[in-house]
Amino acid sequence: MAPILLNCTGGEHQEYIKQHVQVKNPYLDTMEEDILYHFSLSTKTHNLPEMFGDIKFVCVGGSANRMKSFAQFIHQELNLPGNPEELRDICEGTDRYCMYKVGPVLSISHGMGVPSISIMLHELIKLLHHAQCRDVVLFRLGTSGGVGLAPGTVVITEKAVDYSFRPQFEQVVLGKVITRSTELDEGVASELLQCSSELQNIPTVIGNTMCTHDFYEGQGRLDGALCSFSHEEKLEYLRKAYDAGVRNIEMESTVFAAMCRVCGLKAAVVCVALLNRFEGDQITSPHDVLVEYQQRPQVLVSHFIKKRLGLAA
Amino acid sequence: MAPILLNCTGGEHQEYIKQHVQVKNPYLDTMEEDILYHFSLSTKTHNLPEMFGDIKFVCVGGSANRMKSFAQFIHQELNLPGNPEELRDICEGTDRYCMYKVGPVLSISHGMGVPSISIMLHELIKLLHHAQCRDVVLFRLGTSGGVGLAPGTVVITEKAVDYSFRPQFEQVVLGKVITRSTELDEGVASELLQCSSELQNIPTVIGNTMCTHDFYEGQGRLDGALCSFSHEEKLEYLRKAYDAGVRNIEMESTVFAAMCRVCGLKAAVVCVALLNRFEGDQITSPHDVLVEYQQRPQVLVSHFIKKRLGLAA
Repeated sequence: MAPILLNCTGGEHQEYIKQHVQVKNPYLDTMEEDILYHFSLSTKTHNLPEMFGDIKFVCVGGSANRMKSFAQFIHQELNLPGNPEELRDICEGTDRYCMYKVGPVLSISHGMGVPSISIMLHELIKLLHHAQCRDVVLFRLGTSGGVGLAPGTVVITEKAVDYSFRPQFEQVVLGKVITRSTELDEGVASELLQCSSELQNIPTVIGNTMCTHDFYEGQGRLDGALCSFSHEEKLEYLRKAYDAGVRNIEMESTVFAAMCRVCGLKAAVVCVALLNRFEGDQITSPHDVLVEYQQRPQVLVSHFIKKRLGLAA
Repeated sequence: MAPILLNCTGGEHQEYIKQHVQVKNPYLDTMEEDILYHFSLSTKTHNLPEMFGDIKFVCVGGSANRMKSFAQFIHQELNLPGNPEELRDICEGTDRYCMYKVGPVLSISHGMGVPSISIMLHELIKLLHHAQCRDVVLFRLGTSGGVGLAPGTVVITEKAVDYSFRPQFEQVVLGKVITRSTELDEGVASELLQCSSELQNIPTVIGNTMCTHDFYEGQGRLDGALCSFSHEEKLEYLRKAYDAGVRNIEMESTVFAAMCRVCGLKAAVVCVALLNRFEGDQITSPHDVLVEYQQRPQVLVSHFIKKRLGLAA
């Protein structure tokens, strides 16, 4: 792998990073057209700087409905003109992802799992680059399984770790496995924790987040179609995770952290725990309780955005 | 890992497999309720045998819109009563997946990538088990990048292979990596190839399908946000893949093959190539051409189903 991919967070790059979102691909600017296929957008058919040039905050999450709700919510929170019910899906030409723009905020869905969010991130980073965006902060707003936490607790990720609790992401490039760091921005995490202390009813911790490639066997669930381990072995694995600082488990954080870091983008992962995995595997809370839990990362990130924009105390 | 997970295709099990879809989880039948969370279905709130007991064919694909179109198409092909425009999404309580039932055919979306389809497959296999389904055949109908094939060619997968062209899938279970075979059913593949010869305008080959965990670096694309290799290195990797029998590249086949095999389900992967990766990376064909290409796996599998049901010559 070319060292350029790992050394992009050195001090000498900071000045440039503040100016524009960087891609790490020397070929991109030589292409006559760049089709962002999974967004149904292109540099030829869309004026990306005009459409997206003022974006400062990008919020991503798995569910299309949830990211539409978030767009409507932030529209109200920012007191923007127009009807939030009439927000248009910018990616309406495809059903792979949905995307809403609300003032300086972009809200995008990414589906479930590392491959799904990775396709979205490649095209998002290219979009921000083509649109000449500056000083952008990215947030993943998600749901997760808690490890030793009460359901409803929000976890701000300190380090995104793999199944062995290592803060790294393995990426295959032309058949070779390379390793990327998954460290996230400490400043944004602290700022988010401060925000949570200013809000009611958003219990929040900072902890490590384990990212797995499936929901059942990889997370030690006893209720999948396949299960070859005992209840005691499951608990032992979760205890090891807890001892390594893991406070929640989800399925996208490592590649999100790794790609943002390589491209010099400040990023944070904010996920609510829907259950405590020491107590079970199935998500049994009533629908309205789950809906309220899922709003907590939205409320927290909205407060962060409003403070950055000078719209909150 | 318990050997039960790998030895399920032995002859002594064939008789039982013919009768019911098998889960490989001793705990499942002891649970009072099984919530299929990502389908928004449960054994307590839904009568799964009544809803799904007659299913014989399950067709899965990435895009929700495409799987709705397929459901409407197969509804017409099977000459079923009722309005195909009024098919109801059985998973309407969630936006993670969509699901349509059309007579003995179930059409389900699975999103993009191994983790996304793996969640769906766990819950699908549990659903088929709870519903006491018998003699079910599964098809993945997808899109893919062709390797040395003209755009529009349909590939029936012989072996699903990983980034090193090995017919295996690596699954993490409680922090340990185990390896599962990704062999698919030879009989179903041959039957599909025979079907293609009976149809007009469905150019079809049997070949290996490489499954990657991303769309850009893992598939050797030069047009992602990150690219650290040369055009020549890309072509060398694609040539190696071709020499290993790979004819197309997609993102779900290995886990699909592995999980179906472990559970004794007959399965096939049928994907159309949208482009020839030796000639480029971007999908530049006009929308209507792509739509017609995407219908080809649907037409082929529909013909297979009609023949099995005695509705086609």
